[in-house]
Amino acid sequence: MTNTQVTLFQIDNYGPWTVTPEPRREADLQTLQSRLYADISQFVGNRDGYVFFTRFDNMVAVTNGLDLESHALLQESVGNRFPVTLSLGIGGDPSPVRALSVATNGIQSAGSAQDGNRREILAGTAVDSSEQTATDVQIAHFDVVNATGQYTDELNAFDSFIEIEQGYAALMKYMRHSHDSLSFFVGGDNIIAVCPKLGVEAYQDAIDHVESSVDVSLQVGVGRGQSPHEAGMDAKHALEVCRDDGTRVECDW
Amino acid sequence: MTNTQVTLFQIDNYGPWTVTPEPRREADLQTLQSRLYADISQFVGNRDGYVFFTRFDNMVAVTNGLDLESHALLQESVGNRFPVTLSLGIGGDPSPVRALSVATNGIQSAGSAQDGNRREILAGTAVDSSEQTATDVQIAHFDVVNATGQYTDELNAFDSFIEIEQGYAALMKYMRHSHDSLSFFVGGDNIIAVCPKLGVEAYQDAIDHVESSVDVSLQVGVGRGQSPHEAGMDAKHALEVCRDDGTRVECDW
Amino acid sequence: MTNTQVTLFQIDNYGPWTVTPEPRREADLQTLQSRLYADISQFVGNRDGYVFFTRFDNMVAVTNGLDLESHALLQESVGNRFPVTLSLGIGGDPSPVRALSVATNGIQSAGSAQDGNRREILAGTAVDSSEQTATDVQIAHFDVVNATGQYTDELNAFDSFIEIEQGYAALMKYMRHSHDSLSFFVGGDNIIAVCPKLGVEAYQDAIDHVESSVDVSLQVGVGRGQSPHEAGMDAKHALEVCRDDGTRVECDW
Amino acid sequence: MTNTQVTLFQIDNYGPWTVTPEPRREADLQTLQSRLYADISQFVGNRDGYVFFTRFDNMVAVTNGLDLESHALLQESVGNRFPVTLSLGIGGDPSPVRALSVATNGIQSAGSAQDGNRREILAGTAVDSSEQTATDVQIAHFDVVNATGQYTDELNAFDSFIEIEQGYAALMKYMRHSHDSLSFFVGGDNIIAVCPKLGVEAYQDAIDHVESSVDVSLQVGVGRGQSPHEAGMDAKHALEVCRDDGTRVECDW
Repeated sequence: MTNTQVTLFQIDNYGPWTVTPEPRREADLQTLQSRLYADISQFVGNRDGYVFFTRFDNMVAVTNGLDLESHALLQESVGNRFPVTLSLGIGGDPSPVRALSVATNGIQSAGSAQDGNRREILAGTAVDSSEQTATDVQIAHFDVVNATGQYTDELNAFDSFIEIEQGYAALMKYMRHSHDSLSFFVGGDNIIAVCPKLGVEAYQDAIDHVESSVDVSLQVGVGRGQSPHEAGMDAKHALEVCRDDGTRVECDW
Repeated sequence: MTNTQVTLFQIDNYGPWTVTPEPRREADLQTLQSRLYADISQFVGNRDGYVFFTRFDNMVAVTNGLDLESHALLQESVGNRFPVTLSLGIGGDPSPVRALSVATNGIQSAGSAQDGNRREILAGTAVDSSEQTATDVQIAHFDVVNATGQYTDELNAFDSFIEIEQGYAALMKYMRHSHDSLSFFVGGDNIIAVCPKLGVEAYQDAIDHVESSVDVSLQVGVGRGQSPHEAGMDAKHALEVCRDDGTRVECDW
Repeated sequence: MTNTQVTLFQIDNYGPWTVTPEPRREADLQTLQSRLYADISQFVGNRDGYVFFTRFDNMVAVTNGLDLESHALLQESVGNRFPVTLSLGIGGDPSPVRALSVATNGIQSAGSAQDGNRREILAGTAVDSSEQTATDVQIAHFDVVNATGQYTDELNAFDSFIEIEQGYAALMKYMRHSHDSLSFFVGGDNIIAVCPKLGVEAYQDAIDHVESSVDVSLQVGVGRGQSPHEAGMDAKHALEVCRDDGTRVECDW
Repeated sequence: MTNTQVTLFQIDNYGPWTVTPEPRREADLQTLQSRLYADISQFVGNRDGYVFFTRFDNMVAVTNGLDLESHALLQESVGNRFPVTLSLGIGGDPSPVRALSVATNGIQSAGSAQDGNRREILAGTAVDSSEQTATDVQIAHFDVVNATGQYTDELNAFDSFIEIEQGYAALMKYMRHSHDSLSFFVGGDNIIAVCPKLGVEAYQDAIDHVESSVDVSLQVGVGRGQSPHEAGMDAKHALEVCRDDGTRVECDW
């Protein structure tokens, strides 16, 4: 059974800040958001977690292995270096969706995302190290079959992007409602899903759904591990098998 | 009439690089991509252009006002500071979609995105400064009506994201095919569209389409200008009017 | 005759900020300072200026070619993306030292560096583009003769650094008082000096002074140009001649 | 007794890279160096170490608490995200100077800093966690007495910098040869020294030396701890006492 630890990072009062006293330059907001994400990705990533940019003002991470103290340090460091602050919510559950609900509740119950007085909440508890196991995290790494040959080198860059985006929108909704998984676009034609304990047939089902509903062909490698990095690396290797052998679902177990 | 200059930034041979000799750590790839985007955003943005992260390995920019020499300098600077290089294609046209097609063709005709020998292409020509006018660029800035109250503070963070993502997927496809526009998610609940000369009814139509197809309520401010920054700032101010007055489409002219 | 435009960037009220309410983590301060410098370096550098990190809380730049509007944009962009703000002073003069005095006065007369109410000063005027000439800027690029063979590969890393540091301390003081030049350590064993119109003998004199006073052997390439980048590139090429031919002073004219 | 763990970070073959095939834009080199430093500072700093920019191509860190695996991960991550690679040497010794000598030897014995075939060396061993004690690290944080009032607000920015630089050059040489300490300028008017077990009189001696030799007045706070961060925070608090009470040496024990 998986036991996914999920962290929600929410920029405090970000919407109002972006237009106070006047709307700020869009390029500066884009730079700020992407660099904040990059820093969180480095901090969490070099502790073997995964962070997804999601909406940028709300970022979702899988943080198995990061304790509360690490979260507090990241929060402090961001506060020292950026013009905005972060609230953090942490949750753990066999279901990634329920883990994220716990994480979200921790922040929401402290106030609105646009409450100017709610700052630097740190809610929730981390999974104790004594309870961690080698199969706590299951990661699925999808990409689009022959995206470069079929889309990138053939269509204009936006029409390629439409295909990938429609594929993502279909997959992320289906995986959440049918397989209790959180799926994130991570650039290129890649989507990474954080999953409960699912088998081959669940992934085949999701791929079939996307193909039939929006006509985008996906393949997926799946891995398990104690940390997101371990599970994710296994997933990447499994996806390499798909690419080499032309298979559609490969699980590294 | 608009005359949109679009630049496509494509990382050379990126897919193969990410898995050579072994798959690289996902957190490093995420950091690399988002920082590369941030740097391009600063360079283009402080020359009054707009860059969108798009797929990260392929980024689309509106670059009215940037000449070929500026593009070459950005390409050189990225090559000096990152482990990857960029190919650039530039196109200009009253239709943003056709401009991007020209930009894309310039790169595609030089070789595949996964051709190890194709590096640092700089294709296309910039709109001559003598031809630039005060209405060359039209920018529409959408957001979701009451996203914080209805989604962010109520649903778990992924279910909020699903709503926004479904809205974006519907809008970006519809605006491209019905209104010849390029729409990009820019974080939070914000979408920015680069448009030809469209009037109020086109935006009302798009909003109606998204509402009826995926039940997400959008509002939009629209601006025109010589540069993306000018048009975009007008759009932001127009969107503030929507927020204040509860209107759904505001055009700053 | 040179006509050097110098800009002083001073972080507003930085000292007090670093210890309020408690001393902040040193690693965060170091990161903040170096990234702020990097961003200013990119902005100014891709407009063909040079910025030196100097004390980090006070950074000196040669900004020939950057107008007041560019300075204001940089100031705004930093304010949007960092937790600190910048005051800027600009000065122009055939003497780099006098130009910097003008730039400094502009900021000092508005208040103390530790005055919490003095924020985002933009003082001074830029050299008008109609007055710019091809010899406005003279740059000298020094390095230590055989630093790698004699120091880096032989001594422990701090003893190598002591040699370079003593060389720099001697050169920067001497060049300022004897040759009206501003010299900056730029990493490795490299020092870049911003100079008035000096000839070969002045550089030979400075090299002799450093050798006799602290026993560090320098070589230097010198260039002139309309912008710091042009002058600096010529200086780099001239220094390559020193490295290849074993000469000690090479001027690119 | 202290037991300082020192790491030397050396960019592989950096000098040749900066001029191949042609000298690269100085602004790009400055950006690259300062961002590489910033990233190392974050990685090491959020594990409670301290990194100093030193020469940028050779950076010295105090890394008590970081094991070999952490060093390897940082090396890998830099290799994934920058166009240059790092070699690392680690050493541990009651004397910071000897620790750095061990660290330096580890890299030097593998080849020259300008050997194109020597890449990503990871030499040395980390202090075992079982041997770490609460007084392994001693940090002294110096600054210039009334630097803002006496220099920054009065002199031009370069003449202020000359004073600070002369103070640093004198202190760093004296502390190394008389007190076996490694001293680093960290911006503003601040110098941080990594020391063996020294008492008040050693710091008073060093301050007297700098005052008599270059007429710069320093004050210093000193702390001890298991990690550089702990020792450094105590030093910062002790320095605050100097600032408040007008004393010149404060030790936090």
